[in-house]
Amino acid sequence: MPTILVTNDDGIHAPGIHALWEAMQTLGTVVVAAPNTEKSAVGHAITIADPIRIESLNRTNGFQGYAVNGTPADCVKIAVQALMDSPPDVIVSGINMGSNTGNNVMYSGTVSAATEGTILNIPSVAFSLDALRKGEFTYAKKVAQKVATRVLEKGLPKGTLLNVNIPGISESDVKGLKITRQGNVFFKDRFERREDPRGRIYYWMTGSLEDPDTDPNMDGQAVADGFVSITPICYELTDDTMLKALQEWDLE
Amino acid sequence: MPTILVTNDDGIHAPGIHALWEAMQTLGTVVVAAPNTEKSAVGHAITIADPIRIESLNRTNGFQGYAVNGTPADCVKIAVQALMDSPPDVIVSGINMGSNTGNNVMYSGTVSAATEGTILNIPSVAFSLDALRKGEFTYAKKVAQKVATRVLEKGLPKGTLLNVNIPGISESDVKGLKITRQGNVFFKDRFERREDPRGRIYYWMTGSLEDPDTDPNMDGQAVADGFVSITPICYELTDDTMLKALQEWDLE
Repeated sequence: MPTILVTNDDGIHAPGIHALWEAMQTLGTVVVAAPNTEKSAVGHAITIADPIRIESLNRTNGFQGYAVNGTPADCVKIAVQALMDSPPDVIVSGINMGSNTGNNVMYSGTVSAATEGTILNIPSVAFSLDALRKGEFTYAKKVAQKVATRVLEKGLPKGTLLNVNIPGISESDVKGLKITRQGNVFFKDRFERREDPRGRIYYWMTGSLEDPDTDPNMDGQAVADGFVSITPICYELTDDTMLKALQEWDLE
Repeated sequence: MPTILVTNDDGIHAPGIHALWEAMQTLGTVVVAAPNTEKSAVGHAITIADPIRIESLNRTNGFQGYAVNGTPADCVKIAVQALMDSPPDVIVSGINMGSNTGNNVMYSGTVSAATEGTILNIPSVAFSLDALRKGEFTYAKKVAQKVATRVLEKGLPKGTLLNVNIPGISESDVKGLKITRQGNVFFKDRFERREDPRGRIYYWMTGSLEDPDTDPNMDGQAVADGFVSITPICYELTDDTMLKALQEWDLE
């Protein structure tokens, strides 16, 4: 029986991690380690200046997990290196409420948990549902089972993880699965300037999601078109084209 | 006169940002926006669930800056989009105390500030000094001037930033500049389990930096060999090789 580590960034109390935990039951022995509160948009943050505490969570429905006062990357590090007897065969992160496509991959705690797994040489997959507030995970769970099963069979190359985004529509409307590229979806920020009751200025970061892509093979566009988007991503960030161009710069 | 935004992750009171501010004086009009406290290892975290506050800092030596209660990525976002009249011509981040090479690029707030600048289509460079505690920035300042000057002249391709690591040795021992790839330096974690005075268990994340690379064109090895390492990095993370391989997976 394979061992599967389940984590997320919405926190251990989020419905998405319960859905993922349920989906993984049929595939192997499941261990859950997730942040004790929501840690969205923490990117690949880790906790080096504060102590990390772990609490065990036991639900009447059988759900057990480690609640960690840390980031998604912390959860993966401590689960693999201090809490589990041996490393898991696969790490799955999610199911996130809201898609993680394009530039947003950089900010995503869901993806960063899978990146951390990959850094630790464990095949890892991030799952996100393109829906906010509505928690209909039935189809997303099937996708998670299918992808995790294949990853357990085939493994993933060292340094590569899968970023899976599932459209928030009913199963009958889904057009299929598509292997995609990371596109150019971005969050157009706006800072709202306000005054607090003591007369001090503060700002809220807000804005709207924009997708300039029209190519159907880009992650955001594929999801908008009704496909499950599967993007292989890699944290080896060297820009080879620029590497050559830089040799011509007069820097000495 | 170009405008230069200076930021970092060690915080606005760190000696490294003062060195970078000084170095940029000769090149243009300098604006500083940096975290009000140390924000190392926050990766690409942004602050969406808390208000962001800004304080102005004015030193007798002429150093002025915005101290932001946020992450490096927050500082860049709010400076460019709310505090400055027009976007800067270049963003420089650092000078970080400690190198940011290999896998550590993923965790680095210094690099993430430059990544955020790149996302906002502004040429951006991260500078790190391979030294801890010793604050000898004389040579690093020269490197920062040289690289920022070239970036102001030539620009950078959309989506690409430069990650510059400077060896912590005296200038006469430096072998030159080398264009490098992101290598495989990693932090080998260890979790120290302790009991607090109230009998509760907690963990410290600790460990040691390891460099498995021997290729002299990798970032960590180049610095160890006495070179200034300049790595062009890109946040378009698609793994093209795996993209093709995934088409053969039976996922439908």
